[in-house]
Order: sequence, then structure tokens, then C-alpha cells
Amino acid sequence: MVKKSNSYDYDLIVIGCGPAGQRAAVQAAKIRKRVVIVDQREVVGGVCVNTGTIPSKSFKEAALFLSGFRQRNMYGAGFRVKTDITMSDLTFRCNRIMQIEIETIKNQLQRNHVDTIYGHAAFIDPHTIEIRAVSGLSRITAEKFVIAVGARPYRPPNVQFNGSSIFDSDDVLSMKDLPRTLTVVGGGVIGTEYGSMFAALGINVTIIDQRKRLLSFIDEELGECFHYQMRNMGAKLRLGEEVDSCTTRDDQQVVTVLKSGKVIVSDCVLYSAGRVSATDDLGLANIGVKADERGKLTVNENFQTEVSHVYAAGDVIGFPALASTSGRQGRLASCHAFGIEEESMEVHLPFGIYAIPEISYVGLNEEELTKQGVPYESGIARYREIARGQLLGDEDGMLKILFHRTTGELLGVHIIGEYATELIHIGQAVMALKGGIKYLRDAVFNYPTLAECYKVAALDGYNKVRA
Amino acid sequence: MVKKSNSYDYDLIVIGCGPAGQRAAVQAAKIRKRVVIVDQREVVGGVCVNTGTIPSKSFKEAALFLSGFRQRNMYGAGFRVKTDITMSDLTFRCNRIMQIEIETIKNQLQRNHVDTIYGHAAFIDPHTIEIRAVSGLSRITAEKFVIAVGARPYRPPNVQFNGSSIFDSDDVLSMKDLPRTLTVVGGGVIGTEYGSMFAALGINVTIIDQRKRLLSFIDEELGECFHYQMRNMGAKLRLGEEVDSCTTRDDQQVVTVLKSGKVIVSDCVLYSAGRVSATDDLGLANIGVKADERGKLTVNENFQTEVSHVYAAGDVIGFPALASTSGRQGRLASCHAFGIEEESMEVHLPFGIYAIPEISYVGLNEEELTKQGVPYESGIARYREIARGQLLGDEDGMLKILFHRTTGELLGVHIIGEYATELIHIGQAVMALKGGIKYLRDAVFNYPTLAECYKVAALDGYNKVRA
Repeated sequence: MVKKSNSYDYDLIVIGCGPAGQRAAVQAAKIRKRVVIVDQREVVGGVCVNTGTIPSKSFKEAALFLSGFRQRNMYGAGFRVKTDITMSDLTFRCNRIMQIEIETIKNQLQRNHVDTIYGHAAFIDPHTIEIRAVSGLSRITAEKFVIAVGARPYRPPNVQFNGSSIFDSDDVLSMKDLPRTLTVVGGGVIGTEYGSMFAALGINVTIIDQRKRLLSFIDEELGECFHYQMRNMGAKLRLGEEVDSCTTRDDQQVVTVLKSGKVIVSDCVLYSAGRVSATDDLGLANIGVKADERGKLTVNENFQTEVSHVYAAGDVIGFPALASTSGRQGRLASCHAFGIEEESMEVHLPFGIYAIPEISYVGLNEEELTKQGVPYESGIARYREIARGQLLGDEDGMLKILFHRTTGELLGVHIIGEYATELIHIGQAVMALKGGIKYLRDAVFNYPTLAECYKVAALDGYNKVRA
Repeated sequence: MVKKSNSYDYDLIVIGCGPAGQRAAVQAAKIRKRVVIVDQREVVGGVCVNTGTIPSKSFKEAALFLSGFRQRNMYGAGFRVKTDITMSDLTFRCNRIMQIEIETIKNQLQRNHVDTIYGHAAFIDPHTIEIRAVSGLSRITAEKFVIAVGARPYRPPNVQFNGSSIFDSDDVLSMKDLPRTLTVVGGGVIGTEYGSMFAALGINVTIIDQRKRLLSFIDEELGECFHYQMRNMGAKLRLGEEVDSCTTRDDQQVVTVLKSGKVIVSDCVLYSAGRVSATDDLGLANIGVKADERGKLTVNENFQTEVSHVYAAGDVIGFPALASTSGRQGRLASCHAFGIEEESMEVHLPFGIYAIPEISYVGLNEEELTKQGVPYESGIARYREIARGQLLGDEDGMLKILFHRTTGELLGVHIIGEYATELIHIGQAVMALKGGIKYLRDAVFNYPTLAECYKVAALDGYNKVRA
């Protein structure tokens, strides 16, 4: 028996207030649905604002600036803005930026009349959750639900996390002093982002991953370029290796033993291999939704779980687990839940990895196109060939476009280097709006800009097709 | 009587080797025309590489970095990367970057089999020039010509230029020491670029212009925002004022007297009011081409002068005199000269002003749209509202989109702030490919990026239309 919509306390309960939860809530509120967000933290923003995206990006800006990383090409390898860089130099801007982001989100929720409740939510039945808050227990009901509880770092038992020398990605920025040596376990987005930042600061970094490549999902040429640049910064890559144990010695040094028998001793370890969706105390058994062994929920193309009025979005459903894509998932879940017509426009999701160097791409890569048998050609521009690349001191950056050999349709754009995450949106627009490489060849770009890489790459591509 | 094409020494003689000349030459060479570039400097690149664009942009990067300008919002107003910044700190990267650009251009010309001759060219008759070089006099003939001789700073007689305290834009970077006080005459692109850079370095800058606004051609709201930011950096603006004289006192201070009777005393003066096209010794009288009192040539929409086989492109024909647009003009001149079919695609030329803050725009501004009676609406995003703006420390940046109220067509994009010259190309692509603000609203952008401003501005615009 289905209760009528207005006999519930709310039209929509969103559990979790990260990017997915926010956008799900706001989307529903915009069509005047009664919406509440429940979050167990006492703040909005989720991992994105509080321990993940914003803190790490703020750390990155500070590391790039204070280390004078890009300026070394001009002022010499020994150049530093600050000679004794401390952790507090690197993190003190972070709190202010977090505070501003939190205020922005709060304002947005208030403006849209979205209620917020701080407390831990668990399903009692398919339309009821119980909220455990400081003020006590309460129950609320809703017609629809969006689970956007996010994920937390995976902590295997063979790694002795202690918050002083062995860290996960949530507490790594709480380290008191910069280490001289750092071992990073896990070469995914988080591991490579932090690993590269510490390497840029001149710290001796070793990255371990069981796969043969860091960021295994990116275009292979860019991946190899990234390996090269990481090693150029002095990072050591231990790929195809698995960690057996990770313990702290009496002298406070951390000993990481690999299954191959190798031993790595370092001041600190960042363990960032995998994340666990935060679904364990959600009462999912009470509504018949199943999570996998890492807590992850499975959804269909409309972001519905096995229970059709319960949606899930964001990190809780796994890859790609980026703020931008999670926000979109949340919005789409809400649209489907309340029958909002979605634009039919083809959407090209950009991927952004805020490592040093930055990596960003949209569309397909060479391996994917080869597998699909698409007759593509590539056009490449290197930052060092264009004036702005020289001005910025990024000599290793490159932009690659992949296009259909006969139609000229743009199939993918892959960038490694400064501002990659910004630049990608030019290619994204051209792909979505069907400009093809003809547009890139004929457009006039400001001089000097990195955007000129698109034109150089298009001309390179044309030359290959003519040949 | 017209000689047959192959009875001339060359199919095309290009006079001047800046962006316009290079592109004209390369375009013709690509269809196997016999091309020579004659330039009176012993180097390629023109003003763009040698005294203009590249040196000033290199100076800007160094000024921004060494002054810690963007970082002051985070580390306090007194923050500096280097406390005693000298002129050589600011210019020493410049030579290396110039050298690389020159090599790049030389390579490109060689690869395309474009000859180069260093010497001064003057027309003898409509198909012959005489070249005065160190090695002596010579004459060469061609079927077609592109005049791309550029422009030099205008030096009025009432200003005592001396290269030590009173400079024009060509020799300003040769000043030995940074001044404590600087007067800039002329609030066009060059005057505001240099004026803002020196102001960012903490130098007491006064800018004088006879018009009531700096950069009088840009969108008024952006213009006022720029005035505000210039004053915020401590610059004094003397607008609607004309210079009567500019002389050096015995104590080496420069005294600038305005027609209104005001007197400004400063260590140095940069006089950058107007440029003169370098056409005086070109022998134009011998072929019946007339220049105006500032040497400027007038051309039709195909870049032809009064003599149809003699084209002109670049700074020599005046506004906008940007490297990007000049390059395009040169290419189009060549295309027309040799009957190369031009793409019919509508081209949206971006404008980039590399001041601090940067300004860039594409399409029409509010004043132009109002004059044309177009029912437009605007959408605005401020950098400080988005995470990346906070991360970069640019709290005053803003992006404005102008769109048609009923069709949603994008009519103009106007940006002031960090990376404006790069970001503009996203809007440019959307305009050219007819994406409209719907595209910007629905696209997924990397988080955090400045590109998100487009989405925020589109949403702001939608809200205004709905209201």
C-alpha cells in the first residue's frame, strides 16, 4: 500500500551533504518539493569540502607556489619561495577556503528552502529513517530517498594506522611536520595527487601500486608522460607490487614490506588504496538494498537501487567519484525521482586529476578507440612549442586531440600540464557542439595562451591526414 | 601591361616579419607560391617578439610571481616573494623566451621554404622594391605584396624622450632601476598593461588619458571594475586630461604638465599614447598608396590597399593591433591574393588585454547591444563565489555572459580576472557553434575550476529571465 505523497513528512530525504546530496536536494527543491538533508557531520559539504577535494587543492596551490616549482625552469633548480616550508605554511589557507565553501553551500540550501538535520540516519522501513542526533532519536518519513553518504578511506588490518606516521587520505594533512621521505600506497587519483605534491616539495616519495600504471584509466601516452614527470621530480615508482604489511619501528620510522620481499623505510606512509562506501550503519537490510563487500551500492542508469524509490549517487556508487560527476548524478537522480524531463543533449564528462602536473581529459582515449575499431588520428601540441608554455615554465605539458580520420569529428581531448583542468572545457564544448577539428584549426586564439595548443594540435592532425 | 606571374622574382613579397607577415607568407607558401619576407630588423618576429607582446608578458609573469600579488589575500598585504625586486629580476627570463620564439618562427619559415632578406624595403614601382641592406642595394619583383611593417610608438615633440627617465613602450623595459613613482601617459592597451604591472609591484603609478575611461572600447561594467582594481592597487587615474609637456628637471625628476594646469612629478614617465605605422620610407608615393597622418594604411574587407595587388595587414592598418588578429589578417590577405577559398564559418575574434587583472572578451558588449536594440539579458559569476577563485586568491574577478532573452543565443562574454585570456575561448566556442546558454547551464565542469563561472553565470541568467 502506497501512502499519498503529502502524507509523508517530506517528498525527499537526502542522506549525506556532499556534492551529490546537495545537487539532489536543490534540484527537487527548485520544483517546490519538500526536501531535507540529513548528515552525520555537523557541517555541510561532505568529504569534498571537509577532508578531500578542497583541502588537497588548497595544499596543491600552496605547494606549487611556495616551492616555486614552475619557476625553477627560469630561476634555477635550487629556487624556493620559502626555504623552510612547514606543514602550517601549506595548510593555513585551507580553513578559510573551507569556511567560505561551507557558507556558500549553506546559503544555497537555505535560499532553496532545503531543511538540514545533523545526525546519523538509518532506514527503519522503506519510507522511514531514524535519526540519532545529540538531541536524541527521531523518525521522519519521505516518499523518495537519495543515498549520498559518500565513502571513507579503506583501512586494511595489515596496516597500522596511527595518525602520526601512517595516515589515510582523510588525516594526511594533519601531519605535524613535513617528512623527508614518504611512501604512498595506491596510485589512483588521491595517491598520485598527494604523491606528486609532496614530490614537488622536494620530498623523497615512493608510490606503490599493484597495477603496472599509475592512474590506469587514463590515455597510455599521457600515463607514460606522467610517469616520466613523476620520476623527474625524484619520485620512485614501485608498480606491479603489493603491500604485505606496514608497521612503525621503535625509532618511529615506518617499514613497508612488499609481497615481493622488498622493504621500504620512510618517515611517513600515506595509505590510499581504495575507499569504502559509508553504508554499513544505514539499515539497508531493513529495506532490502544490498551493498557489496566494500559497501558500494549498485544502481541502474537512473541511479535507482533495487528499491525503486531509493536512489544512490556520488562516491557511494564508486567510480569516478569526482565532485563534478557526483553533483550531476545527484541532480539526475532527483530529476528521475520527480519526473523532471532531462535534456537529451549528449553530455561529455570531463575528468580532472589535480596532480602536479595536472591531467584532464574528455571523450575516449587511444586504447578505447583502437578497441572499438574507430579510424582515428591524433594531433599533438607541446606546451614548450608555444609562447605561453614558455612563459609559464611548463616545458613538459602537452595537449592531444583525437579525431575521426574522415569526418574530422573530435573524439577525445587529453591534456597533461598546467591548467589542464581548465583548458579541457574548450575541447569539451567543441565535442558537444560538433565543431570538429576544423573549428579548432580556424578559430583565432588570444596570443599568448595555452589555448593555442588546440590550434597547433589541429594543424598537426591535418598534416597527418594529408600525408 | 601585366607581366606574367612567373616572370617576377617571387609570387609574393611580404614586407615585415611580425605575426601578420609570417602568416601571410606561410599561407602562400603552403600552396607552393614563391615567397620572400623582407624585414629591416636582423631578426624575425617583429614588435610582437622583440619589444612588444612577449617582453611585456614575460615581465608580467615575473611581476605577478615575485610580488606575490595573488598570494597577498592569503599571506597578508606585506607578503613578497622577494623583498628587493630589481629590473633584472623582472626581465632576465625575457631573452630566453624571445630566443625560443625566434627559433620557432625561423623553423616555420624554413620548413615552408619562405626566403628571408634582412634590409629596408621601398617601392620603386608597383611590382618592384629596392632593398637597402648592409651588403648593398638590390631590387626584387613580385606579383603581389603584403605590407606588414607594423607600427612604432608615437613621439610628440612636447615630450623629451631620453631613454633614461622618459620612455616609450619600446624602451621602457630597458630602464635600469625600478622607479618609486611612474607616470603613464595613455590608457590604451599598452599603457594599462604596463601601468597595472608596475602598480602591482607596489610602484606609485599615475595614468593619464584624454578619454574618460581606460580601455575605452571594453564593456563599461568591466571598465569600471578595472578602474576600481587599479585604484585598489594604489594607482591614480587622471582621466579626461591632456598632456601639455613632459620634461626632465635638473634633479632628474620628470615633470608632466597637464593642459588643466595640474603638475605631476615622478621618477619616470612611460609615454604610450598612440602609435605610428612604419610606412614613411616605404616609397608608397611611387605606387600611389596613401597613408594617413599617422602613417596608417586604409584597406578594404579583403585587406587590399588602393592598389589592388598590394595588401596591408597587422598594426600598420591600426586597431585592434593584437598579435592574434594580425596573424589572421595576414592569412586572409594571402588567401585573397591567391584565390584560396576561405572558410565561410563565422569567426568570433577574442580580445585579450594582459593587464593585472587580465581582461578578455568576445562578441558584443552591453553598450553595443543596447544601441542595436537587442533584447539581451546578462548572467554574472564572481570568482570569489567559486572554489577555484578562492584557491587562486582572486576575489575581484568576474565573468559576464550576455545572451538573447528569448532565444538564449550567446551574444558576448566579458571576463576580468586571472586567466581571462584563456577562459574566453570556452565562450568563444559556444558562440561560434551555437550552443547558447543552455549548453553552459547543462555542461559538467571540472571542480574546482574557473570554468565553472560559465555555469554559475548561465544559471544567474536563467533566473533573471524567469523572474
